Amino acid sequence: MVSLKLSSFTHLLSSPSTTALSRRSPVNLPRRHFLHPLTTTSSAKTTAAETKDRVDNSKNRVPDRVITPRSQDFNAWYLDIIAHAELADYGPVRGTMVIRPYGYAIWESIQEYLNVKFKETGHSNMYFPQFIPYSFIEKEASHVEGFSPELALVTIGGGKELEEKLVVRPTSETIVNHMFTQWIHSYRDLPLLINQWANVTRWEMRTKPFVRTLEFLWQEGHTAHATPEEAENEAKQMIDIYTRFSFEEAAIPVIPGRKSKVETFAGACKTYTIEAMMGDKKALQAGTSHNLGQNFSRAFETQFTDENGQREYIWQTSWAVSTRFVGGIIMTHGDDAGLMLPPKIAPIQVVIVPIWKKDDEKMAVLNAALSVKEALKSSGVKVKLDDSDQRTPGWKFNFWEMKGVPLRIEIGPRDVSSGNVVISRRDIPGKQGKVFGISMEPSILEAYVKDKLEEIQSSLLERAIAFRDSNIVDVSTYDDLKAAISQGKWARGPWSASDEDELKVKEETGATIRCFPFEQPQGIKRCLMTGDPAEEVAIFAKSY
Amino acid sequence: MVSLKLSSFTHLLSSPSTTALSRRSPVNLPRRHFLHPLTTTSSAKTTAAETKDRVDNSKNRVPDRVITPRSQDFNAWYLDIIAHAELADYGPVRGTMVIRPYGYAIWESIQEYLNVKFKETGHSNMYFPQFIPYSFIEKEASHVEGFSPELALVTIGGGKELEEKLVVRPTSETIVNHMFTQWIHSYRDLPLLINQWANVTRWEMRTKPFVRTLEFLWQEGHTAHATPEEAENEAKQMIDIYTRFSFEEAAIPVIPGRKSKVETFAGACKTYTIEAMMGDKKALQAGTSHNLGQNFSRAFETQFTDENGQREYIWQTSWAVSTRFVGGIIMTHGDDAGLMLPPKIAPIQVVIVPIWKKDDEKMAVLNAALSVKEALKSSGVKVKLDDSDQRTPGWKFNFWEMKGVPLRIEIGPRDVSSGNVVISRRDIPGKQGKVFGISMEPSILEAYVKDKLEEIQSSLLERAIAFRDSNIVDVSTYDDLKAAISQGKWARGPWSASDEDELKVKEETGATIRCFPFEQPQGIKRCLMTGDPAEEVAIFAKSY
Repeated sequence: MVSLKLSSFTHLLSSPSTTALSRRSPVNLPRRHFLHPLTTTSSAKTTAAETKDRVDNSKNRVPDRVITPRSQDFNAWYLDIIAHAELADYGPVRGTMVIRPYGYAIWESIQEYLNVKFKETGHSNMYFPQFIPYSFIEKEASHVEGFSPELALVTIGGGKELEEKLVVRPTSETIVNHMFTQWIHSYRDLPLLINQWANVTRWEMRTKPFVRTLEFLWQEGHTAHATPEEAENEAKQMIDIYTRFSFEEAAIPVIPGRKSKVETFAGACKTYTIEAMMGDKKALQAGTSHNLGQNFSRAFETQFTDENGQREYIWQTSWAVSTRFVGGIIMTHGDDAGLMLPPKIAPIQVVIVPIWKKDDEKMAVLNAALSVKEALKSSGVKVKLDDSDQRTPGWKFNFWEMKGVPLRIEIGPRDVSSGNVVISRRDIPGKQGKVFGISMEPSILEAYVKDKLEEIQSSLLERAIAFRDSNIVDVSTYDDLKAAISQGKWARGPWSASDEDELKVKEETGATIRCFPFEQPQGIKRCLMTGDPAEEVAIFAKSY
Repeated sequence: MVSLKLSSFTHLLSSPSTTALSRRSPVNLPRRHFLHPLTTTSSAKTTAAETKDRVDNSKNRVPDRVITPRSQDFNAWYLDIIAHAELADYGPVRGTMVIRPYGYAIWESIQEYLNVKFKETGHSNMYFPQFIPYSFIEKEASHVEGFSPELALVTIGGGKELEEKLVVRPTSETIVNHMFTQWIHSYRDLPLLINQWANVTRWEMRTKPFVRTLEFLWQEGHTAHATPEEAENEAKQMIDIYTRFSFEEAAIPVIPGRKSKVETFAGACKTYTIEAMMGDKKALQAGTSHNLGQNFSRAFETQFTDENGQREYIWQTSWAVSTRFVGGIIMTHGDDAGLMLPPKIAPIQVVIVPIWKKDDEKMAVLNAALSVKEALKSSGVKVKLDDSDQRTPGWKFNFWEMKGVPLRIEIGPRDVSSGNVVISRRDIPGKQGKVFGISMEPSILEAYVKDKLEEIQSSLLERAIAFRDSNIVDVSTYDDLKAAISQGKWARGPWSASDEDELKVKEETGATIRCFPFEQPQGIKRCLMTGDPAEEVAIFAKSY
């Protein structure tokens, strides 16, 4: 078998910008060899043993697959997980990413949930072309300002120079409006509620797998309404769906809120956002929903005839969640052992590792493992049996822990005799997370497993909430804010100062207003910067 | 309400090429106004009436929404259906297509079936970047020859001229091999079985919605194997899955077979295909599966270490089905009244049209309709209740027939009293397809509906088989072949002649070898062109 020298991803990709201001500086990412976590040196092999002498995990660490400790270098740790858990790899073009099957399966979990919710709320999927005439992008003033530095342009088609350059869509508001203008005639055609699952391209200079890549996958919803109230309700409904998804499925306790004017989407009146605290306490904007008002409809002359026969511009929204969310899941739950996946979005919820020493034990153990697998599978649990001969149980323990599988079931010869299995939780390391003597009897085992999966799901959310809340500091002065940010924390304080003051905070601290959270404290407040009355608190943080 | 002058799509899009030879001549498609089938003139309104005087369909034809008769102009008919059934619209860039919700829902039905089959056969979904360095395309000689005239090139990114032009993927063999070379080391890494759902771009000159567009959606499977036998089995397995999908779900009796050398995919050793006969008797290549041999692995140095420690090139396949299949469904089953969808892929299987004259009847009728809807929905039927006030029942009958919904349930006041409904089949026009007095009792109605849906599914397939078989002529001479083709039919005859002879047939008749079908007649055969011994019969036809 091939022995490969595996090294860490750490130094191979530059750290992302900590402030949006530095986003434009060009960085060339060096090429690297691919890291193949399934290939190990023979020194990694150990012998399986049962119960007391079952497996000594420390002996099974694959030395050349070690993940940089999270506390030591968060970015290196993140890239190590992406490589070793086989979530993604780099494409041949700078800043592009190949999403590998395990990473893509997480995206599919996200898709499955959201797709159902979108349809339940009346949205239909459709597909718009990705090539947009350059002139479209120029129609909405702030849109072109926001996107023109990031565009990829097709200038040659079928061997010929094109008369008009084509933009590879960075987002679809312009082409959507072009089509809406043809489809919408009267108030009877409204609301028009659509969504597309698509790839988009933004020529980013500093990239990081999942978090910011030249091309990424997302869904983009686009809606048209007859009144501003309807559009506002739609924008809020969609940020609510994202919020519920984050809490209930991804176990990420995002803070939903409104963006400041400075941070509002290029072309929107209002942007709602969900902001997530990553393990390094930086904020990740995990989803946005925009009330576009009439900005695009005025630019594209998208009008309808209302009930009184008057021509009016339509009111619009757009909203999106992307593959960036996968990065958010990694950076919220992962630990030094690797990825840790919430059961509801884990491609594999339970892995079964059969353990045998002698050949005469093998058949009985594998048969028992197979029955357990079938029982769990038929009750709807996503289960994998790792029956490979190539690896020791210890190696498999580490590998599936690193892949973040929530539960592990171990079955050895003694378990077969006693009719029991051993179950280990990914979220509780070592002996504390291990329970012996769970009956193999299908109904008992299924109930136990489902119960534990729910427990893990809740536990991950609770842990993330505790982490989030212990790292948000309430501030009432700019000095407080600076202190909190310099400690790497989030600062929450009353804000009614100017855009200039907001940019000053960014320049001096690296932090931006992540949002004015929907949940606001009661009582009279004074702006932390100016001392003037403030209606709302804002959250400041450094962000991805 | 707005009154719109609606015209036909007919003259707006040029007819597709009938031969592949003419594919390169540039044609500029004129822009057109959008046609809005839901908006009619007031003259289209008629009154609903029950039973005998229930609804006179002829009075409800919306005059400005009439579909060109299929027999009169097949291409015009096709474009009319696409417009009026709201399947797709033109994008702002020449040759691009917007897939509208109803058309996209058909694509989703295709995706749902195939995605499950791909996973059942061990394939994982993943995602490759769409930007491919130009140099990659040049590595495989016949690949570059086949694709270079059709490429869209990105030359500007982030405001700067790029050092190397980027190809917007026309297909992904090259980038897949680039990645496989990094992931595959030993025989233990094989087979590697992956698939992606993605958009692809080919700079086509003559386009036609769904059938041939600049950008289209597809799935592309890519696999790597240790032996040529495994690759061959994989290529055949996937064409089998496509064949089964066509017969069982789409009710399209495709003919699976092998392409001639001339028609083989650029870069493949063997191409398997499913060929479908459209309503105008032209052939549509509806899916392909390629045995790539070692062509790409040699070009990209994709090697593995076999069990004996020898370095070998991997053996590969690729296979694809695209949104073109939606065009195939339209052109197989549609008739003068519009689209006709096989129940298994219909986004709406049953439409309920409530009928009332007086306001005091309305509530009872709508309540009954709602109960019927809920009963069918809970038993897994895709059902829509069209309870809109804006349209007459007659208008709705025509509209949903045009949209190809397999079954219609009518409920009027007398039906409510008697506890029965009226059910009409889309595939049997008029009274023959209409059954009165079906009980509303959920268990009876559900069983009846499911039974009828199955009957329609089988009936559409049988009809298509009969049509196909009555239009294939067995030929034994070139004169026979020419006669068959000039009658617009398919010719099937023994073939062992040269590539030059094959091209001669193409030039002289416009027909190409669609495939050497897997199903071959017994006995000794003589080539229809040369009289030499021939091992196989080939099918010749004009094609899309």
